[in-house]
Amino acid sequence: MSHSHNPFEKQAPIPNVKHIIAVSSGKGGVGKSTVATNITLALSKKNKVGLLDADIYGPSIPRMMGALNQQLSVNQDKKIEPIVRYGMKLMSIGFMVAENAAVVWRGPMLFKAIDQFLRDVHWGELDYLVVDLPPGTGDVQLTLAQSVPISGAITVTTPQNIALIDVKKAIDMWERMNIPLLGTVENMAYMIAPQSGERIQLFPKGELDAYLDSKKISKIGEIPFHPHVSLGSEAGIPIVESHASSTEAQEFFKIAEKIREKLPV
Amino acid sequence: MSHSHNPFEKQAPIPNVKHIIAVSSGKGGVGKSTVATNITLALSKKNKVGLLDADIYGPSIPRMMGALNQQLSVNQDKKIEPIVRYGMKLMSIGFMVAENAAVVWRGPMLFKAIDQFLRDVHWGELDYLVVDLPPGTGDVQLTLAQSVPISGAITVTTPQNIALIDVKKAIDMWERMNIPLLGTVENMAYMIAPQSGERIQLFPKGELDAYLDSKKISKIGEIPFHPHVSLGSEAGIPIVESHASSTEAQEFFKIAEKIREKLPV
Repeated sequence: MSHSHNPFEKQAPIPNVKHIIAVSSGKGGVGKSTVATNITLALSKKNKVGLLDADIYGPSIPRMMGALNQQLSVNQDKKIEPIVRYGMKLMSIGFMVAENAAVVWRGPMLFKAIDQFLRDVHWGELDYLVVDLPPGTGDVQLTLAQSVPISGAITVTTPQNIALIDVKKAIDMWERMNIPLLGTVENMAYMIAPQSGERIQLFPKGELDAYLDSKKISKIGEIPFHPHVSLGSEAGIPIVESHASSTEAQEFFKIAEKIREKLPV
Repeated sequence: MSHSHNPFEKQAPIPNVKHIIAVSSGKGGVGKSTVATNITLALSKKNKVGLLDADIYGPSIPRMMGALNQQLSVNQDKKIEPIVRYGMKLMSIGFMVAENAAVVWRGPMLFKAIDQFLRDVHWGELDYLVVDLPPGTGDVQLTLAQSVPISGAITVTTPQNIALIDVKKAIDMWERMNIPLLGTVENMAYMIAPQSGERIQLFPKGELDAYLDSKKISKIGEIPFHPHVSLGSEAGIPIVESHASSTEAQEFFKIAEKIREKLPV
């Protein structure tokens, strides 16, 4: 990259949106979208929030929010109206293409799509816009960082070392882009069997804590696995809404408090 | 694509390798590499087998097979000698680059790397070469199909509908390439709590069975979740080796039998 080219030269804030928060993971299947959904919903209890599903390869927010097959409308200012669920504003590529259609966008097309999500949606006044990114360290992450100032990034992982390899890559990426790390969420950290109360370590504890300590990155949440979390995602009613007093939901409320402390509005 | 260009024109078998089996998944985190590892190990009890880790973005076979930091050697025929573990021949990009180094290969470079894995490794005589592919429906899958005749593909998924969306894409891809589907493995199908014996549906059952029935695709395995499966992957001793009589390992042995029936040697 030559010195004359600034990759962030097109970067501009979204008017009236105070903080943009990126939620990413090193690998798929760690529950990133479930975590993004529940954190956003927890934030919405005290703040004005939006959730942008930028996982263009596998958008799952419409299903998780009970908003499949919603029709988008364009207002008189020619802005796209977000879908509203549980008091949150939602936008997803899933509202634009069929759920099982593959979307392969690269380079300028990708930049244009992300830009449209950010600029051409009527977000209105928001304290926090949470962006659910695809897994990995690819073009969408870079495109987002080039388009808007990101106040902070959250990385999601599961406990075992095989997942740690990948979350390290995600953390490295945010550091290279000088984006503050709000912290790491350890998802499926353990499980309490619903009937017997037996504690089960689904995935073996690896060196995640030692790694985060060495990097001075805070672990902002430790979410136990509970079947009602995945059932809630499947049924379109996130557990922060359906089981607000559960251990899992309470963890999401704690994460929301930590975000409010780190990114005051 | 013009009619004059045959995407499979470079396709050639690997001498002395009878069947190449592709293991793929629609999304990450469904246990694809764990399934590929244990199926291959189960096959190895009666057959000569190799396992090629073609997940160039996140190679996990070296760790799962207890073969981290192995040095590769080149023999007098200038072929790369595979690493041998539990009687299986292994090759992985993980033996060539550091575990946490990101590899981004596209187009001709990718084709060359896959070609080298297939042609420049001293596989010797094999009944089955199992290829562990990256998640999704990308360039590596296409490159493999262009390079060698694939006898059959196995897709791995978890039970819930959010995962089904993605496995459908993987199945569509194999069908478009006219590659026979050996079947779908439902991983983490349910769990029996290790102490109390309580049955737990970790992920809600979706419409996977109905979808497979409608497509006449067999479900060749239903693997329960057990912490010793992920612990085995983490520790480098797959459960087919460490807990051969467990329900989980027995499921892998059944899958191996079905593969032998569908692809006799």
